[in-house]
Formats: sequence, C-alpha cells, structure tokens
Amino acid sequence: MDEGPRLREPADATSVKPPMRDALVAAAFQLFLERGYEQTTVDDIVALAGVGRRSFFRYFPSKDDVVFPDHERCLADMKAFLGDPAEADDDPVQRVCDAARLVMRMYAQNPTFSVQRYRLTKKVPGLRAYELSVVWRYERALAEYLRGRFAGLPDGTLRADVITAAVVAAHNNALRSWLRSDGQGDATAAVDHALGYARDTFGSPPGDTAAEEREDVVVVISRRGAPMWRVVQEIESTLGRD
Amino acid sequence: MDEGPRLREPADATSVKPPMRDALVAAAFQLFLERGYEQTTVDDIVALAGVGRRSFFRYFPSKDDVVFPDHERCLADMKAFLGDPAEADDDPVQRVCDAARLVMRMYAQNPTFSVQRYRLTKKVPGLRAYELSVVWRYERALAEYLRGRFAGLPDGTLRADVITAAVVAAHNNALRSWLRSDGQGDATAAVDHALGYARDTFGSPPGDTAAEEREDVVVVISRRGAPMWRVVQEIESTLGRD
Repeated sequence: MDEGPRLREPADATSVKPPMRDALVAAAFQLFLERGYEQTTVDDIVALAGVGRRSFFRYFPSKDDVVFPDHERCLADMKAFLGDPAEADDDPVQRVCDAARLVMRMYAQNPTFSVQRYRLTKKVPGLRAYELSVVWRYERALAEYLRGRFAGLPDGTLRADVITAAVVAAHNNALRSWLRSDGQGDATAAVDHALGYARDTFGSPPGDTAAEEREDVVVVISRRGAPMWRVVQEIESTLGRD
Repeated sequence: MDEGPRLREPADATSVKPPMRDALVAAAFQLFLERGYEQTTVDDIVALAGVGRRSFFRYFPSKDDVVFPDHERCLADMKAFLGDPAEADDDPVQRVCDAARLVMRMYAQNPTFSVQRYRLTKKVPGLRAYELSVVWRYERALAEYLRGRFAGLPDGTLRADVITAAVVAAHNNALRSWLRSDGQGDATAAVDHALGYARDTFGSPPGDTAAEEREDVVVVISRRGAPMWRVVQEIESTLGRD
C-alpha cells in the first residue's frame, strides 16, 4: 500500500545525532544487557563510554531517557506533520494514520536497537511505565489534531478520541508483531495493513477523489442483526478495498 | 440506554472496606490537598490517621496506591465478569462495553473523592504515570477477552486490540467529561452515549436477537467515496438505532 508522497522524509538520523550521544546509547545498552537495567548506573555508562557525567546529562535528563532517545524528535516531527497547513483539507483519519507511521519508521530505521529495547522494556516495569507515558504523548498529539478537525461536529471530541485510540492501537499491534519477529518482517507492510483496518472503519479511502466525483452508488443488503463490522467488511469487499 | 440486566451488581463498597483503610485514604487526601502530594510522606498519613506504618503497608504497597485504592478490586470484578461462562455466547463488543462500565460505576460511587483525585492526578506527573499503568491493565484484560472471542478469525488480534482501544477511549472520554463537571452530570447517561458510539461502530446492537431471527434486509445506497463512518451512521439511522 502507498506510504503517500505527502509524508516528509525524517531528517537523516546519522547527521543529527552527535557521535557522543550514540556512544552513550550504545554503552548504556551494552551494560543493560550484560548486568540488567536496575544494576546499571549513569556512572557505569559514562565510564564505559569514556565521557564525564555532565556529557550524559547534556543529552539525557535521566537513565530512562537513554532507552528511548528518539521519541522527542519523532514527537516533534509528528506535530510538524500534523500542523502543516498545506495538508489542511485532506482526510483527517488518513492524516493521523500517516502521522502514526512516523513512529514505525523510527523503529524500523534501527531494527537491532528497537528489538533490544523491546526485550528490555518487557522485563523492567519502570521502563514499561515510561513507554506508556510516551505512547500517551503521541496519542494526545493525534487526538488534539482530530479534535481541531472535528470542532463543531456532533460528538467531535468523542469521535476524535475514539478514532485516535483505534489508530494508535492498530499501529502498536503491527509494531509489536514486528518486534516479536525480531525485526525480520516487513514493518511497512505490517503497519499499512493494520492502519488500513482502522482507516477503513472510520475514514474515507486515500486518493479516492476521482471515485467521489463519479458519485457511484453501492447497494448493500444486510441482515438487520448483522454486526456492524460484518456490514463494513461487505461494503469494503464490494468497493474492492483490501 | 440500558445498563443490561446481565451486569452483576458490584459488592457494596461500605461492607468490604475496613474502616482503617478508609481512614488512611481520607487522611492521605486531606494532606495531599493541604500540603501537596510530593510533600506528604507515609509517616504524615499514618500520624493523622492515628495508626502505625505497618497498618498502612498492610493495605497499600506504596503512597501511589492510596490514591487509587479501588482499582484492584474493580479489575478483579472486570475479569470475573468477562470470565463468566453464562455469558459466553453474547455479543463480544457489547460485553467489553459492559465490562468497561464497571470502572465508571466505581468512580460514580464516590463523586467527591473521584473529583478530588482527578484534580490531584492532573497536577502530579507521577500519579499520571500510575494512572496510565492502571488504564493499561484494564485495557489488557479487555483485549485478552476479545482476542479469545476472535481467536481463529482473520486479523483477530488486530481487531481485538483496536476495538478494545476504541471502547476504553470512549469510556474515558465520558469519564473525564463527568469529572470535569465536578461529578455533577449524569455519569451513566454519559458513558452509555460514549460506549454506544464505539459499540455501533464495531458491534451488533444489544438484545436484537428477535430482529436477527426475522432476517430482515436493509438496503443502503452510498456514494462510493463516502467515509465509512457516514455509511455506518446511515445504516444505524435506517435501523432506528440511536
């Protein structure tokens, strides 16, 4: 499925990360894997990286932050993407799906690191809590965007919150599957498939303005008691969406 | 809207909470509101409640837990409700909506306490993180249930995760609105309305087996490019669901 030409390429990771920052992350993960997260101190990390404590705290507010070094940048990229006025009239659900894709792209840029971190996060409750707060910040950014797009509509905030949660859950389902496959699977295909389910449930299909102009009609015949997802599935199948 | 006769009444809160536990919660909140959360120690709380430290730790593993004293019980009630074999063949989406309702019911049992806690949680980042971990545990319980119900279906885990997230987001949208109204609004009506949106998007209507037996047909005519939520809205309107 398309990733969409509207998605801005993220800044080249190697050009924006100073080598010392990379060295600190590498040293931290080596120690976390050898000794365990709780048993590793910031002093241990700076000793292995061969730098002083002040250098560590110039890049990371705490030991937790070295585990998730790129989320701040990704969150800023997401907000910039959502705030781009050139895209203000596109489909809002498609836009939040494209914004969520930035997170998967960040993970997929460095599969080895992402898989190591996934294993570590599952073992350390404090990191799990930190990760939940990171997900929450992405979710708030996406929901704020949709609330703006749905302002004035009936149940605008409810709809914004529910659609955002569905998109984030779809994204995270694909992300976790990919991480569990040790980063071997096709991350883009997995996230496209998952986001497609969320988008088709709530939004209009991407790039379908031509069809919209044709004003085609679709006739659906449904048992009255059929679950809504079955009806949606039939409509999608009729329309030839996958 | 109906709360459903299938929902078991929760245990009467006053009969299961020992007075000492209540006294500790009351003392803790008095101090949190007077001095702030960070400035209050467990020693301060037990001194005001007139009990020893060991009594505190008999009821609460930490200071965080005294802020959310009833979530463990509510989570246990939720798992019992989801695991009840007498309900194994009902609509799975309706069931997770009913399970989510147990959380709102817990909050609505004590509006003053719930509103105080909401204000405190918004101010204290550590409590916000704790609350996210609580929400995550509810969400995992609901998702595990749906994954079981959807086992073997195409995209069963994806669908389970997305529907669960949508139901939890709808519930929390209603819960936060009610808390922001200082607990003055109608909590049941708010959560019914919000869960109705999630259920109608994904599930079949409650108690509609008679209609299912009639095997009625419904004809929907839609523009090809119409967003899926508009199609769903039209179908619901045709079926006379609110």
